[in-house]
Amino acid sequence: MVQPSIIFLIQCPDRKGLVSSISTFFFKKGFNILSCQQYSDLETGMYFMRMKLAMNDIPTTRRQLEDDFEAFGHPFGLKWSVHYSDRTQRMAVFVSKTSHCLYDLLLRWKENELECDIPLIISNHPLLEEVATQFRIPYYYLPVNDRNKKEQEEQIRALLKQHHIDLVVLARYMQILSPDFVREYEGRVINIHHAFLPAFQGGNPYGRAYERGVKMIGATAHYATEDLDEGPIIEQDVERVNHECTSDQLKQIGRDVERIVLSRAVQAHLERRIIVTGRRTVIFSS
Amino acid sequence: MVQPSIIFLIQCPDRKGLVSSISTFFFKKGFNILSCQQYSDLETGMYFMRMKLAMNDIPTTRRQLEDDFEAFGHPFGLKWSVHYSDRTQRMAVFVSKTSHCLYDLLLRWKENELECDIPLIISNHPLLEEVATQFRIPYYYLPVNDRNKKEQEEQIRALLKQHHIDLVVLARYMQILSPDFVREYEGRVINIHHAFLPAFQGGNPYGRAYERGVKMIGATAHYATEDLDEGPIIEQDVERVNHECTSDQLKQIGRDVERIVLSRAVQAHLERRIIVTGRRTVIFSS
Amino acid sequence: MVQPSIIFLIQCPDRKGLVSSISTFFFKKGFNILSCQQYSDLETGMYFMRMKLAMNDIPTTRRQLEDDFEAFGHPFGLKWSVHYSDRTQRMAVFVSKTSHCLYDLLLRWKENELECDIPLIISNHPLLEEVATQFRIPYYYLPVNDRNKKEQEEQIRALLKQHHIDLVVLARYMQILSPDFVREYEGRVINIHHAFLPAFQGGNPYGRAYERGVKMIGATAHYATEDLDEGPIIEQDVERVNHECTSDQLKQIGRDVERIVLSRAVQAHLERRIIVTGRRTVIFSS
Amino acid sequence: MVQPSIIFLIQCPDRKGLVSSISTFFFKKGFNILSCQQYSDLETGMYFMRMKLAMNDIPTTRRQLEDDFEAFGHPFGLKWSVHYSDRTQRMAVFVSKTSHCLYDLLLRWKENELECDIPLIISNHPLLEEVATQFRIPYYYLPVNDRNKKEQEEQIRALLKQHHIDLVVLARYMQILSPDFVREYEGRVINIHHAFLPAFQGGNPYGRAYERGVKMIGATAHYATEDLDEGPIIEQDVERVNHECTSDQLKQIGRDVERIVLSRAVQAHLERRIIVTGRRTVIFSS
Repeated sequence: MVQPSIIFLIQCPDRKGLVSSISTFFFKKGFNILSCQQYSDLETGMYFMRMKLAMNDIPTTRRQLEDDFEAFGHPFGLKWSVHYSDRTQRMAVFVSKTSHCLYDLLLRWKENELECDIPLIISNHPLLEEVATQFRIPYYYLPVNDRNKKEQEEQIRALLKQHHIDLVVLARYMQILSPDFVREYEGRVINIHHAFLPAFQGGNPYGRAYERGVKMIGATAHYATEDLDEGPIIEQDVERVNHECTSDQLKQIGRDVERIVLSRAVQAHLERRIIVTGRRTVIFSS
Repeated sequence: MVQPSIIFLIQCPDRKGLVSSISTFFFKKGFNILSCQQYSDLETGMYFMRMKLAMNDIPTTRRQLEDDFEAFGHPFGLKWSVHYSDRTQRMAVFVSKTSHCLYDLLLRWKENELECDIPLIISNHPLLEEVATQFRIPYYYLPVNDRNKKEQEEQIRALLKQHHIDLVVLARYMQILSPDFVREYEGRVINIHHAFLPAFQGGNPYGRAYERGVKMIGATAHYATEDLDEGPIIEQDVERVNHECTSDQLKQIGRDVERIVLSRAVQAHLERRIIVTGRRTVIFSS
Repeated sequence: MVQPSIIFLIQCPDRKGLVSSISTFFFKKGFNILSCQQYSDLETGMYFMRMKLAMNDIPTTRRQLEDDFEAFGHPFGLKWSVHYSDRTQRMAVFVSKTSHCLYDLLLRWKENELECDIPLIISNHPLLEEVATQFRIPYYYLPVNDRNKKEQEEQIRALLKQHHIDLVVLARYMQILSPDFVREYEGRVINIHHAFLPAFQGGNPYGRAYERGVKMIGATAHYATEDLDEGPIIEQDVERVNHECTSDQLKQIGRDVERIVLSRAVQAHLERRIIVTGRRTVIFSS
Repeated sequence: MVQPSIIFLIQCPDRKGLVSSISTFFFKKGFNILSCQQYSDLETGMYFMRMKLAMNDIPTTRRQLEDDFEAFGHPFGLKWSVHYSDRTQRMAVFVSKTSHCLYDLLLRWKENELECDIPLIISNHPLLEEVATQFRIPYYYLPVNDRNKKEQEEQIRALLKQHHIDLVVLARYMQILSPDFVREYEGRVINIHHAFLPAFQGGNPYGRAYERGVKMIGATAHYATEDLDEGPIIEQDVERVNHECTSDQLKQIGRDVERIVLSRAVQAHLERRIIVTGRRTVIFSS
């Protein structure tokens, strides 16, 4: 059983005494620190911290805790967010026609590797409804064409609101979301790109990898931003290939890389181990 | 002790009976086949073969063997080359100021992992002469500037001719060779690029990798062609990095990847396991 | 679409003229060779070949082909088997309570990565029936205890016979099969061991890996033999871990390694790319 | 340029307020914390910390700092050590006949990847004196046989004392050190074992790996303890092999793994990123 916990993600300009001040704040409040990880970026002078507290001994209301921390942090210029493990995150998965990433997420979710609820799956194709049914998750088929693109996105938006979605995972969803949408959900949309970015940005990466004769193929999970395939990278991996691999075999090998990369990224996000800083991500190990 | 051998590298349009005809040619000549690897590229309809024969039982002159094979192969449209293991290949290493790839090549050469002679090292900097001296290899310091670029390359050319060089290895040589030079030595110049091509083509790949926030860095060994960093890829590898890595640490990690990738590529070339086909390489395992 | 094919797996003492003789045999029969891979083991003097022929141009009955090849091969001491791609292999999966390997096999089977029929799943627990139902595969729950061990295995045997099973995959089946059973199905039972053999043979490998403080954990797929965890290894892989990993996290990471290792092994077997020789396996790439 | 720093390595039973108390201790002394990493082992209830302080602003004598920290830590049951980066560590390398690990260490040392002095190399063979000479390091040839084992170790001990050696690296030193020696240098002798421990403990691991038909070979760096190959593991890695690899090729591939594994372990030790706890190691990333 995972211990109930409170996680603070913090960033601010680096200065003397930060660890001492912050940890003393929580100590005086009576908290037990389960883990505390920090990183000082010498190039930018920024400081990052992930502070995980035991929740069982919470001696104050959450509102009070947050107000007090805000007041405490103001002089330091702290930017922070707080996450309570008893508030289960709600994740929507977007898919099109390929099932491997969807299946992988659902299986890990069933194995309790991913701590979240999945209230809905959204797709522009009817094909994967059967998978959703296997796991008893509502499947919304919202077809999209040249004329209804805007309306379809409005429907999506409404569904996400209605279901209080915290995180959107694009599990090989082959539609481009509007800049408005991406801005609204900044830092809350994870996409899997089926190539080792920044190589092979854009379409048909396996075909282009084949033609270029690369000896490894990869996948990249990143937060979606307005610039396609340019968002902060969360996770990447590669697998070795050789001249014997046909395009189809590259795709098969690629599927294995995609699903493991996407799952690791989603897990890191759900475990609140990621802080975005510009185009880079700080990813704490625990 | 490695057994003396003859290696034929063969490519031609695929058709029925190729294995039978070619292997029977060598069988009738009295050869023992040590290994025979093939690959049929279904997308291009081309056939590739590496045939390794025991040399000790060679029952004919080399001239005769080659003439007979040429006559035999003509109806099939064979393109082929032959390599005798008792004719040691001669390799020149080009360097600038960084020593890690040079050291790695020289150590493997001393350990007999690379079957070749290294009659000379060429550099546009005096810095690494000391390394050459440690291994008792002549070091040619040929400085280059805006005015003498052509003359310097002429000097290089003359040295390569004089020393009967078969293979040029650019072990972090930070000068661009002329198109003429590259054409003349087509398929005989191996370069190491310190990035996972096609990502980060061009200069300062580690700095750009740091800024892009990638989670792995890589290196690529390829044959040099007129288009910089566009030549057929021989070998690639990557290593995992994270947000804590400074640019300097990326460089350190990158050095390890570079040297192992370059060495594997050079070894594959020296062992005659590579056939180039367009922008791709067929690399036999043995 | 995969091209219909005939695969010969061949082993015999090495000698001059084997490639020529064998390939000429098939050429004279009128076959087109799709791929032909060989390996000469210098330490044992044995020769191994995988010959893949196009089936569409088969100019003879299968019986005639096999009789002729047997007659041809006798003087060479050939041991061989032949496999026709239009005869789909039939695979039974054995499971206990963990689902990750089962799911992985079934998903790849649905994606056509594994060319086989799966007529049944056998388990000593009722738990995974639901998974079988999702994929519409009959699930046989055959409980086992101290007294009925022999009877249960008889039931298994009868089911395998009745369903003409070619390959048994132990996808984390936590029962030991009898020596009789293993002998009868020699080379046709693939097991996944959740450790990097020969490290951590036997039970509770993740717990022991944790205690030993290893920095990587692995998994091994092998053919089952009478000596537990001693059979010929087909595939292995590892994943990096660190001191922060709890036993539970080791298990989660291990699950990913197990499923990918088992799938690769099953795929290699189904594609007829494996020849067993003593305690070792020759695994052709295609 | 690396910033001068003071590193405290700390372990104690976990309890509330440790981070706050320890960081406040250093803050009140006027130190700037460069990095602070912690790990709570839930299974043993132990707490581990690596605290890295900027040295330039040290406002007290070292003696005073240490006395004060000892007094401060006593109630918490702290076990700790302190390391000043301006006190360069002194490393002795022990070798026998193979040079690859020695070369790798010396090259990284020259590239400033390993922050230490190397005042001497000790060997029971004369063979590698030439390598030592290349890098201008004194080479002590101390032959050993059945009768002089004890005397030779006395000579070694005297040399280590005379040169104030902090760390002994067994870079394929093929002699077993006495229990007395290992106890005296506990936590200060790093050995490279040419196998993926606990697989293939003891002699001839590559030969046994070949016979067992493994699909990957590995190497393990660990602190030496009285029980051979049983000491706390610092680093491990593996490389993929296949049936074509001869024993010699396994050895070549293994050499690459050995040197990278040993170097990473030595670097982690020199950077004071390791805390040993029982048979396990806590290795901080920075």
